[in-house]
Amino acid sequence: MTETAETTAPTIPVQRRVALDAMGGDHAPAEVVAGAIQAAREYGVGVLLVGPQDAIRAELAKQDTTGLDLEIVHTDEVIGMDEHPAEAVRNKKRNSITLSHQLVRDGKALGAISAGNSGAVMAAAIFTFRRLRGIDRPAFGAVVPAAGGSQTLVLDIGANTDCKPPYLLQFALMGAVYMKSVLGLGNPRVGLLANGEEETKGDHLTQEAHQLIKAAAPTAGINFIGNVEGRDINAGTVDVVVCDGFVGNVVLKLSEGLAKMLLGVIRAELTANVVSKAGALLAKPAFDRVRKTIDYEEYGGVPVLGVNGVSVICHGSSHAKAIKNAIRVALQTADAHLPERISEGIGQLQAQFPSEGAETPETASS
Amino acid sequence: MTETAETTAPTIPVQRRVALDAMGGDHAPAEVVAGAIQAAREYGVGVLLVGPQDAIRAELAKQDTTGLDLEIVHTDEVIGMDEHPAEAVRNKKRNSITLSHQLVRDGKALGAISAGNSGAVMAAAIFTFRRLRGIDRPAFGAVVPAAGGSQTLVLDIGANTDCKPPYLLQFALMGAVYMKSVLGLGNPRVGLLANGEEETKGDHLTQEAHQLIKAAAPTAGINFIGNVEGRDINAGTVDVVVCDGFVGNVVLKLSEGLAKMLLGVIRAELTANVVSKAGALLAKPAFDRVRKTIDYEEYGGVPVLGVNGVSVICHGSSHAKAIKNAIRVALQTADAHLPERISEGIGQLQAQFPSEGAETPETASS
Repeated sequence: MTETAETTAPTIPVQRRVALDAMGGDHAPAEVVAGAIQAAREYGVGVLLVGPQDAIRAELAKQDTTGLDLEIVHTDEVIGMDEHPAEAVRNKKRNSITLSHQLVRDGKALGAISAGNSGAVMAAAIFTFRRLRGIDRPAFGAVVPAAGGSQTLVLDIGANTDCKPPYLLQFALMGAVYMKSVLGLGNPRVGLLANGEEETKGDHLTQEAHQLIKAAAPTAGINFIGNVEGRDINAGTVDVVVCDGFVGNVVLKLSEGLAKMLLGVIRAELTANVVSKAGALLAKPAFDRVRKTIDYEEYGGVPVLGVNGVSVICHGSSHAKAIKNAIRVALQTADAHLPERISEGIGQLQAQFPSEGAETPETASS
Repeated sequence: MTETAETTAPTIPVQRRVALDAMGGDHAPAEVVAGAIQAAREYGVGVLLVGPQDAIRAELAKQDTTGLDLEIVHTDEVIGMDEHPAEAVRNKKRNSITLSHQLVRDGKALGAISAGNSGAVMAAAIFTFRRLRGIDRPAFGAVVPAAGGSQTLVLDIGANTDCKPPYLLQFALMGAVYMKSVLGLGNPRVGLLANGEEETKGDHLTQEAHQLIKAAAPTAGINFIGNVEGRDINAGTVDVVVCDGFVGNVVLKLSEGLAKMLLGVIRAELTANVVSKAGALLAKPAFDRVRKTIDYEEYGGVPVLGVNGVSVICHGSSHAKAIKNAIRVALQTADAHLPERISEGIGQLQAQFPSEGAETPETASS
């Protein structure tokens, strides 16, 4: 392990290093540093730990890091979970989130990872990496467990609360590209979240978006299966669920809350008397498998979609396992050249379905 | 049991009869009629069974109905689950849903109950009972289970997909009145569903509605606790969750789907080997209690809020138990004089926070 303010002379090729915001999330820096150590050991990846060097050093000292490529990139500036994202990113020039992204932009790391203020991560990703041409609003998503052991990507989950139909079309495309190129799904089924399956269902936004996605799907190579309902999200019948960030945020937090409530009720009932306690003991391995199925930490995080770089946002309450898995997601995303794949998809769309900020042919050629 | 096309000479006082759409829902008429019989037996209530007399008679013949006040009100017109609600209600003058509501309007029953096409029930309720003065959009809600054995009312869940801030204020008021006067909660906590707790969070609609509800809460006697998030819905920390019908519909269907998925995973894991099977057997009574906690049939249904009459909408997949419980809800709603209670609340609001369609003082006095 070496320590420098600037990253130099890596022992592992630059392309196998990631930049990790050591101060992000409810359990930073302890769990974040522990996750970095696990990832370095399991994946042979180098990790630039971005944050106050004393705090990080204290965590590193708790474990044997011999032979691991862990390097501290010092900064004292940290953005709190409750700070206003854009303002914080603007005012704290050397905050650990932005600095992580700058290391990626400057070619010192493959991707940035943070469990910190997700709005600030989004702002830093856009500010540092820039939006991809043709993307009006970068999005972030979450992978949720579905029946049959499959996974469903829900996006947007909070970056964009008020959306226009073209944004949802772009989310559909980006979600499909992510599931295809990073998670390896052959032909991901993309659904638009609504209050009914018929294409006449939905609020105004959804109805317009439905027609737009339907029209654009062949050009964009989107396997659009139409409207899906809340009950489809965990049913394993759809791979990408498109919605605005307001609805997506409710979906994600409701899922977490309901799962927690149900497991709480089950725990309370199983320990209510001696007989059910005995049953619970015998069934414990089965329950551990259930818990693993719905454990959000298994999925680590999902990259910001629509920016020209790799930035993975983790859950604010991430423990070491989630951080480790998010580092794996960052590596997979970089290896899959996700921004390039999204750009290709958007390029095919642009002529027929221009984004809001798209240059017209006249201005583009002048 | 007697049979007439018109209801006459009831053996039980008119005020203890309800009108039940015998053809509503996926399991009609068998489960609906079975639910009516259970309710008649348990609650001593009279039930007017509205629908094709032959089909209803065949179901009644399967059980001993001696001494029960069950009466068939014949009609052949039935609205399908996939028909366009308003059109179907307009074109089928004597459909079983509308006829049930007319029996209430004409003083022959205390309330109407249907597990049929919920849009058609809403249309029939508005058309037959009329909106309460000061209510822009009647709403319907659902009661969902929450931690600690409590219940949370979520509204709207599908009647109004595109809302304006005053609608959400009216939902807040109606939800609070329902929880107070029908479910007997002392001072129900009302929250506005958003993507964050801070009042600056939310989409444009939610942000505006937040300010409106906050300003009106003292006048209307609403115990407004501010924004709540998806994770709060089942946490037992809020009693009324206000949202537009698009989001509410997603919330409800997601809750059902996720609970089903989780119980499915648990079942699969528990039967995976002999040891866990033995554990599951011992723990079965505990699991039965868990299932009961999250069983939507226990709640029966919730009345349409904001119309001048009692109309309870049940889940489309209701079995006998849900129908029986919905009949109980109709009785409780009628006994609590819910429409009057809502009118009182709205009356207090009107001067300061007029509804869209409110008459101005000038036109009202002219």
